[in-house]
Amino acid sequence: MNALERFDLPVSAIPRRWYNVVPDLPELPDDYLDPVTREPVGPQYLETLLPRALIAQETSLERWIAIPQEVRDAYRLWRPTPLYRALALERHLDTPARIYFKYEGSSPSGSHKLNSALAQAYYARLEGVERLVTDTGAGQWGSALAVAGARFGVDALVYMVRTSYKTKPARRQFIETYGQQVLPSPGPHTAYGRDLLAARPDHPGSEATAVSEALETVRAHPGSRLSMGAFANHVLLHQTVIGLETREQLQSIGAVPDYLVASVGCGSNLAGFAFPFLADKLAGAEMTVLAAEPAACPTLTAGEYRYDYADSGRLGPLARTYTLGHAFVPPPIHAGGLRYHGAAPLVGLVRHEGLLEARAYPQHEVFEAGTLFARLHGLLPAPETAHAIRAVIDTAHQCRERRHPATIVFCYSGHGLLDLPAYHSHHTDPMVEEEPVPHAAVR
Amino acid sequence: MNALERFDLPVSAIPRRWYNVVPDLPELPDDYLDPVTREPVGPQYLETLLPRALIAQETSLERWIAIPQEVRDAYRLWRPTPLYRALALERHLDTPARIYFKYEGSSPSGSHKLNSALAQAYYARLEGVERLVTDTGAGQWGSALAVAGARFGVDALVYMVRTSYKTKPARRQFIETYGQQVLPSPGPHTAYGRDLLAARPDHPGSEATAVSEALETVRAHPGSRLSMGAFANHVLLHQTVIGLETREQLQSIGAVPDYLVASVGCGSNLAGFAFPFLADKLAGAEMTVLAAEPAACPTLTAGEYRYDYADSGRLGPLARTYTLGHAFVPPPIHAGGLRYHGAAPLVGLVRHEGLLEARAYPQHEVFEAGTLFARLHGLLPAPETAHAIRAVIDTAHQCRERRHPATIVFCYSGHGLLDLPAYHSHHTDPMVEEEPVPHAAVR
Repeated sequence: MNALERFDLPVSAIPRRWYNVVPDLPELPDDYLDPVTREPVGPQYLETLLPRALIAQETSLERWIAIPQEVRDAYRLWRPTPLYRALALERHLDTPARIYFKYEGSSPSGSHKLNSALAQAYYARLEGVERLVTDTGAGQWGSALAVAGARFGVDALVYMVRTSYKTKPARRQFIETYGQQVLPSPGPHTAYGRDLLAARPDHPGSEATAVSEALETVRAHPGSRLSMGAFANHVLLHQTVIGLETREQLQSIGAVPDYLVASVGCGSNLAGFAFPFLADKLAGAEMTVLAAEPAACPTLTAGEYRYDYADSGRLGPLARTYTLGHAFVPPPIHAGGLRYHGAAPLVGLVRHEGLLEARAYPQHEVFEAGTLFARLHGLLPAPETAHAIRAVIDTAHQCRERRHPATIVFCYSGHGLLDLPAYHSHHTDPMVEEEPVPHAAVR
Repeated sequence: MNALERFDLPVSAIPRRWYNVVPDLPELPDDYLDPVTREPVGPQYLETLLPRALIAQETSLERWIAIPQEVRDAYRLWRPTPLYRALALERHLDTPARIYFKYEGSSPSGSHKLNSALAQAYYARLEGVERLVTDTGAGQWGSALAVAGARFGVDALVYMVRTSYKTKPARRQFIETYGQQVLPSPGPHTAYGRDLLAARPDHPGSEATAVSEALETVRAHPGSRLSMGAFANHVLLHQTVIGLETREQLQSIGAVPDYLVASVGCGSNLAGFAFPFLADKLAGAEMTVLAAEPAACPTLTAGEYRYDYADSGRLGPLARTYTLGHAFVPPPIHAGGLRYHGAAPLVGLVRHEGLLEARAYPQHEVFEAGTLFARLHGLLPAPETAHAIRAVIDTAHQCRERRHPATIVFCYSGHGLLDLPAYHSHHTDPMVEEEPVPHAAVR
């Protein structure tokens, strides 16, 4: 019995334009606010932080933005990525639903993150930026920027969340093998890092602490610019190659999605995957966009929609989105890429507008789902991706109960080959749970 | 500037038949000999070791052998694999040569090994075999059999060379995540392993010790059969999907190979990649087939062509091939997949017939080549694959000197994502060399 079907696109089908969802949304996003004046930030402020091309994309109201030929050429290394139908999973769940997944795991850095890293490194090179400084959670973004920097000849400095830095040596080694620098956050290289360590020497770090250290470093070195792996509008924009390809692949087989499922930390894979379908939804298509997040960091299911800082040091602008509070330090779960206190502002807005549902899952259920998927289909998902698979399994069970032959499509954001120690821990002692989130911290 | 070109085949182009080189060779392979009687082994002997379908393939004189539809379906997960042109490497080397590579790193187990593992697990399932027992060096074969066993519902028991078992925990964890069993070799689970450990408690193991333990286990458990990741003719046969696809891809762009380059431990990726071109070579095409091996285990460059045991415990048949002697224990280099004392008999025969050249490289040159390739092209090669890249760089330099616009094609046998500690060691102290091979041991 066939375990799966695969639907490819030719290399010529790599998208020529990114899709900007902003002009299609019912409301425009709120401005970013200056952390000192609380006034909307202008281009002058942003120019000290980001390459200019990205600032233009950040605030663009154009629906379509051309992908530079050099970036399309770089995408050719692994794009277009395949769409698969997961027949073995459907049979195992005995569901009438059809389950498809868009496979971003063939990227050389292992995840969808490279879609934006290549664009950012290209623009940095074009504008003479010497070094991109960034933060990384589980290390997937740092790995992507390392590959992209090597490809376009731009140095990268990666602040890696301390808990991941300690538990994921392979990610560090990956970044270093590409000739780039990686430092733990919090660490002794910035004033902010030194303060945090003085107050709590065993501080596990979070993406919010790493962003603060990256911001401080960029401010201190004029040839450097900030690079973000999620959160910002331009990053989500770059990721829309995922959804644009998926849309074309589904159309080619006459499939119409009822459910679009992705994991969410900040939301870059969800946004890149689902935003290109939102215009259809706004035009009346019945379609559920479903975000799967960790119970240990339940931004969309337990957060509040309000202005908050993007970084724990309050060095960068404020944005309006769903947040657990910038001081929230999530427990050190294995899906380090989902340990961020806030959703990307555009993902928050879409949720606020009622276009996005969310569910939170405990870690052991997530690893059970990832292990099942690996054994059925041969592909080992990243812990982040396994959240989406967990939500797909739930949805498929509901379809069985309701005898609904729905079409479920999920984003397989990355492979778990560098997360094997996490799978090992799960199998050795599956019931070791993440710490529960104290209610007081969820603000 | 474009870093590479990519040439894909549609899913429908997955080969329908494997290519058996035997009927096209000038001489037939020599028989396997029974370890006790030294008489040619018959099917009755082999039936205690292998599934019947594989015995038929082992001794077949048919040029083409049909690939079962179930195996082709399973290949769809990642096949056909892309052929790339490495433009950035060409420019970096300032060579008039064109460099192409066939990319086997997108396999879910990370290497070409899955091509044969899926076939072996399929036949085992078909014939009611309960468990496949095997050996693995670096762990790539064990990983492939774990994925294939999970896919077709067959248990796998993997004896992993002790030095890799200790230094590559991710490979162990990979095998276990797929629900399969992995044990260190030598280890206390077999009489042979206990003997070795009694004589030398820190014995690093080798593929030859692991094969002996696998053989002992199969003999003791009638529902078990042996599975081999290289060496045997049927394994090389399964790997010919690599070369058959490559041939079609090269033809589609009008390229004719002057050099076919691959790394060699036993030689399964070299054979699978290059054998489908041998008929052209025998018909007069000027074409160099080049094997790259580690200086620490120089089977083809320093071995002797004679009958020898395939396993160090002398439990299995003898075969005629290039060998360093079945008691040879190579130093624990990072490219654990190349630590085997003998070439596959068909690879040895092809070398003996003058159809194959070989070069040996020291470890630090290999890692330099792998690192260069990763930074130029974004893809991190397995240490085994990096041997081939080292040989390609040498060949491209020669082409520059001779102003020869040759077409060089190499087999990118697998990715190095689970070998990051090895890259890390290289970058930390690149001049730590493998121990030199004592001359007395090379017999």
